[in-house]
Amino acid sequence: MTTVRLIEYAEAGPEVRAVFDDIMATRKTDWINNFWKALAHDPATLRRTWESIKQIMGPGALDPLTKEMIYVAVSATNQCAYCIASHTAGARKAGMSDAMFAEVMAVVGMANETNRLASGYQVEIDSQFK
Amino acid sequence: MTTVRLIEYAEAGPEVRAVFDDIMATRKTDWINNFWKALAHDPATLRRTWESIKQIMGPGALDPLTKEMIYVAVSATNQCAYCIASHTAGARKAGMSDAMFAEVMAVVGMANETNRLASGYQVEIDSQFK
Amino acid sequence: MTTVRLIEYAEAGPEVRAVFDDIMATRKTDWINNFWKALAHDPATLRRTWESIKQIMGPGALDPLTKEMIYVAVSATNQCAYCIASHTAGARKAGMSDAMFAEVMAVVGMANETNRLASGYQVEIDSQFK
Amino acid sequence: MTTVRLIEYAEAGPEVRAVFDDIMATRKTDWINNFWKALAHDPATLRRTWESIKQIMGPGALDPLTKEMIYVAVSATNQCAYCIASHTAGARKAGMSDAMFAEVMAVVGMANETNRLASGYQVEIDSQFK
Amino acid sequence: MTTVRLIEYAEAGPEVRAVFDDIMATRKTDWINNFWKALAHDPATLRRTWESIKQIMGPGALDPLTKEMIYVAVSATNQCAYCIASHTAGARKAGMSDAMFAEVMAVVGMANETNRLASGYQVEIDSQFK
Amino acid sequence: MTTVRLIEYAEAGPEVRAVFDDIMATRKTDWINNFWKALAHDPATLRRTWESIKQIMGPGALDPLTKEMIYVAVSATNQCAYCIASHTAGARKAGMSDAMFAEVMAVVGMANETNRLASGYQVEIDSQFK
Repeated sequence: MTTVRLIEYAEAGPEVRAVFDDIMATRKTDWINNFWKALAHDPATLRRTWESIKQIMGPGALDPLTKEMIYVAVSATNQCAYCIASHTAGARKAGMSDAMFAEVMAVVGMANETNRLASGYQVEIDSQFK
Repeated sequence: MTTVRLIEYAEAGPEVRAVFDDIMATRKTDWINNFWKALAHDPATLRRTWESIKQIMGPGALDPLTKEMIYVAVSATNQCAYCIASHTAGARKAGMSDAMFAEVMAVVGMANETNRLASGYQVEIDSQFK
Repeated sequence: MTTVRLIEYAEAGPEVRAVFDDIMATRKTDWINNFWKALAHDPATLRRTWESIKQIMGPGALDPLTKEMIYVAVSATNQCAYCIASHTAGARKAGMSDAMFAEVMAVVGMANETNRLASGYQVEIDSQFK
Repeated sequence: MTTVRLIEYAEAGPEVRAVFDDIMATRKTDWINNFWKALAHDPATLRRTWESIKQIMGPGALDPLTKEMIYVAVSATNQCAYCIASHTAGARKAGMSDAMFAEVMAVVGMANETNRLASGYQVEIDSQFK
Repeated sequence: MTTVRLIEYAEAGPEVRAVFDDIMATRKTDWINNFWKALAHDPATLRRTWESIKQIMGPGALDPLTKEMIYVAVSATNQCAYCIASHTAGARKAGMSDAMFAEVMAVVGMANETNRLASGYQVEIDSQFK
Repeated sequence: MTTVRLIEYAEAGPEVRAVFDDIMATRKTDWINNFWKALAHDPATLRRTWESIKQIMGPGALDPLTKEMIYVAVSATNQCAYCIASHTAGARKAGMSDAMFAEVMAVVGMANETNRLASGYQVEIDSQFK
């Protein structure tokens, strides 16, 4: 069970509703996922987190699909079940195919393996990489 | 200091040299980085790890640059200094600009933040994501 | 399902009962949570872990509420579902309000973000911090 | 070596200088630590990160010292060398004594231990905690 | 729910069946666990992962039981619920008793504690360990 | 630099000296490594941590060598440089050969890889493992 009761749109105050409205407009959806309903208990964190995500995940030097796949990669590394589920859905909506998901996972697995080999063997950074 | 002495090409046996040769040929470089020189103490792991990386990091549904950036994202999440240094170099060689690096980092930072907010608030996965 | 069957008070031996009794007396409760019932399979670890927690979490230079909130912060960072649930309950019992919980989470989220930015950018420690 | 060259105040553009000025004014110091000089390559992330930290770390339901100690606890859990060094300095400036630091560390160590015991034993969450 | 539909033996293609057959033959079982049924969506990763595990987990300088216990220790440290469940079962099949499991957990807990104490106190590596 | 000044035997009080003496006697060495000299600032944590390690790492259902290798495996997974260095030394003293170290690392790498594949694919635990 969520630590705090989820706040639904109907019962939200104007500050929370404004963020909820912007989330739905930006994402072109008509529902709010539980993450935001939980954060709604702390309107300042709700607004800050949403504004940050909106700024970061939009198109820039990287396209939104690449960013969503990186989000999935980090969430899988941290093993955050909620974030894996929500951002895999987000990445698919942005165009990630099954084959692309499988390759993201393969890279994530390999990176997690060699991260520990490099640390466990205490490998020193090559001067060429500095 | 590395846990094991680094094995240089000149002193390596034929099994290790064959892998070293393939690394240099595949990467179009004339040197071997310390990671592989450390693994050379365990030729089976050296070969398996290299063959896996070669298979995973080549072009597929995702291009090599995207894969290198995902590798950097995982390594930054795990805070593996060696892997951050080596794969940032690899990603740059594959075409990552400073602006792209900055966006990878911004996504990595944000994902690490919301991963903990989702876990800390014990947010339940929406049925829409299942 | 727990890896080992939970050991209830009624079936516990005197060594385990002594620890269970001390937990209930110290915490002023009349029940034992599952964590201790699982550890009861290993009475030495049960006793050591309980004695350590009792020593650490009592009042000292920091008050018990601050300690419980730090426990929640670490558990959220590690994304340990059981520990988040049990120590959020513990922190609330010690006086943590909803507003305090929200601020703990905000700090935890931010720290997890900047930890990766600092690592990913390979920022060197300032001489002033050494 | 930092992934990107550090940007000093003297060479920074007006957007970066404005943030640097606010950091020094808010913290009542006359220098900028390396973290911000690295982020200065990405003014949007620099501004967003600083504004977030300023909002989160100020007094609220929790006092700034408690927040700095939670920051240290998360950084130690993640083993981020830079953040441990900088936020231990920050916590000391906010009033953390050696005894308080030692207690923070004791709680961090214990929480990291029991997080794994709870996970490894696959302990189910008690209904009382839901 | 698994991100991808699980692929059962009956519907699998020859490439996947060949790996499934080898898993059952090597492990002397007549069923395939969900992990492999999920990976079956990516036959290259399925084959590579299985071949790597088969190579690594067989007898060598360490016996298979020790290796399975190390696998459990890593999975508990990472708090991967699936891997804790499957490799605890694997370790038990290889001969791990309840007492041995309890000692693995005790070491895992202690190592996770002292890892953070060493990092949090920023302890420098003794010259004797280099 | 260590967060706190290291406390040498010559300047230590009787409480700390008693622990230092026991460490040297138990380990059959004539020096104390930095970890304990740092913890010496907090005699209660010093004593508790040492007594716990002594209890856990001695012979039991598992031999000390196996325990030291599990300690190395956890430390490599967490990427704690100090603990990797000190416990690799400890494991070698207890009899770990280069070939055994290489196999520990291979298992650690593989477990870290499959932990993320299992999480990223959101694989459900088989009923056989419950």
